[in-house]
Amino acid sequence: MSIKVVSSKLAAEIDKELMGPHIGFTLQQLMELAGFSVAQAITREFPINKADQSLRKKNVFVIAGPGNNGGDGLVAARHLKLFGYNPIVYYPKRSEKQPFYKQLVNQLDFFKVPLLSQEDNDNWMDYLKEEDTVCIVDAIFGFSFKPPMRPPFQDIVDKLVELEDKIPIVSVDIPTGWDVDQGPITERFISPSLLVSLTVPKPCSTFINKKKTSHYIGGRFISREFANKFGFEPFNYESTDQVLKI
Amino acid sequence: MSIKVVSSKLAAEIDKELMGPHIGFTLQQLMELAGFSVAQAITREFPINKADQSLRKKNVFVIAGPGNNGGDGLVAARHLKLFGYNPIVYYPKRSEKQPFYKQLVNQLDFFKVPLLSQEDNDNWMDYLKEEDTVCIVDAIFGFSFKPPMRPPFQDIVDKLVELEDKIPIVSVDIPTGWDVDQGPITERFISPSLLVSLTVPKPCSTFINKKKTSHYIGGRFISREFANKFGFEPFNYESTDQVLKI
Repeated sequence: MSIKVVSSKLAAEIDKELMGPHIGFTLQQLMELAGFSVAQAITREFPINKADQSLRKKNVFVIAGPGNNGGDGLVAARHLKLFGYNPIVYYPKRSEKQPFYKQLVNQLDFFKVPLLSQEDNDNWMDYLKEEDTVCIVDAIFGFSFKPPMRPPFQDIVDKLVELEDKIPIVSVDIPTGWDVDQGPITERFISPSLLVSLTVPKPCSTFINKKKTSHYIGGRFISREFANKFGFEPFNYESTDQVLKI
Repeated sequence: MSIKVVSSKLAAEIDKELMGPHIGFTLQQLMELAGFSVAQAITREFPINKADQSLRKKNVFVIAGPGNNGGDGLVAARHLKLFGYNPIVYYPKRSEKQPFYKQLVNQLDFFKVPLLSQEDNDNWMDYLKEEDTVCIVDAIFGFSFKPPMRPPFQDIVDKLVELEDKIPIVSVDIPTGWDVDQGPITERFISPSLLVSLTVPKPCSTFINKKKTSHYIGGRFISREFANKFGFEPFNYESTDQVLKI
């Protein structure tokens, strides 16, 4: 099946309209559903086996960036904890602009999810051992990313590139550092094992290595008419699923 | 299995703490998850059969009250539409205090969900034919209800009592008009076919007719430690499920 994609320009219009005065979704609602879908995709790719509960003892290492992609990661971490996983969140640059992100952090504290901050910029890798880690969630930058990458994120991405053959990387919507339309644009780039596209895949998703990367769609919150208006068909999610493997 | 319940007093403390400054859940987040769980419970009790898609042509008739119970119903209706059902929402008294409810209504408009208002107080029953209706969602009053019931809700409840042998009623958290702790306190009362308790069952849930009523728990957003602090064990939800039949 060919993947339907929409350009960054159209995807930005979709987001704007979803949260505009007419439709009136709030960031909190969409982020809750998006983060839930990322967590559900992880349970599908890395299921906790009833016979073998060893995954419960391992960590899901979530790296959250300062914007909405990071917010999706914070929400995903909370749901992963509820689903029986063991998330650790590394959140090196916290946005002060958006008080809701502080609340997402409080919610993680409530669930006793360990949180690393900028004080851990030199030692976050200590929490990331191959044998202890289910996967790394790349919720650093998404859709709105424009180069250059500021510290400490370039350093983080460089280290992730070295790790990706040992620990699977799950990218939220856009692999960090990729161009939304052009895909990988730097010499060294993240190559995720799992990509969760939100609402609709962006053009960069066609550059994933199809042999290596599972591709899911998540963010189940648009109508058929709305999808058609933007030139694509809605995805045929099953039952109450919030993700679909495509 | 005996159902674990917490008193109305404790349940109010739980809600207050969840949305307090320490934990920091927002109403929008909790309502999104609660409404999602109500919709998922409905898919479990009234599944759309792949072989027989007739349920898709029938309606789920959601009656939303002016407060948070109604808000849960509005969210549930949106998810039901996404799950392939055909919700109709009767929302006779809209709160002006809470602008978010207006946004929930806009979201339903976006999904082309038919909305009845106070102008339909005399004819809403016309949309509620036994042969066309999967179930009625009673999202009128919940936890915070104190008698007497103001118009038009007493009239609505009286009509629901007459309908309940013909069309299954799904109550959100508390069957409308029941006392949270004492259960049915009036001569005539709603007797739901499905009760979705949110976060933790309230004492009134022990008064349901166990032969007739399926009981689900939904609202999967608390930690084990938090549940224990309030004297109950968390529920063993499966995988990513947002409801558990108890």
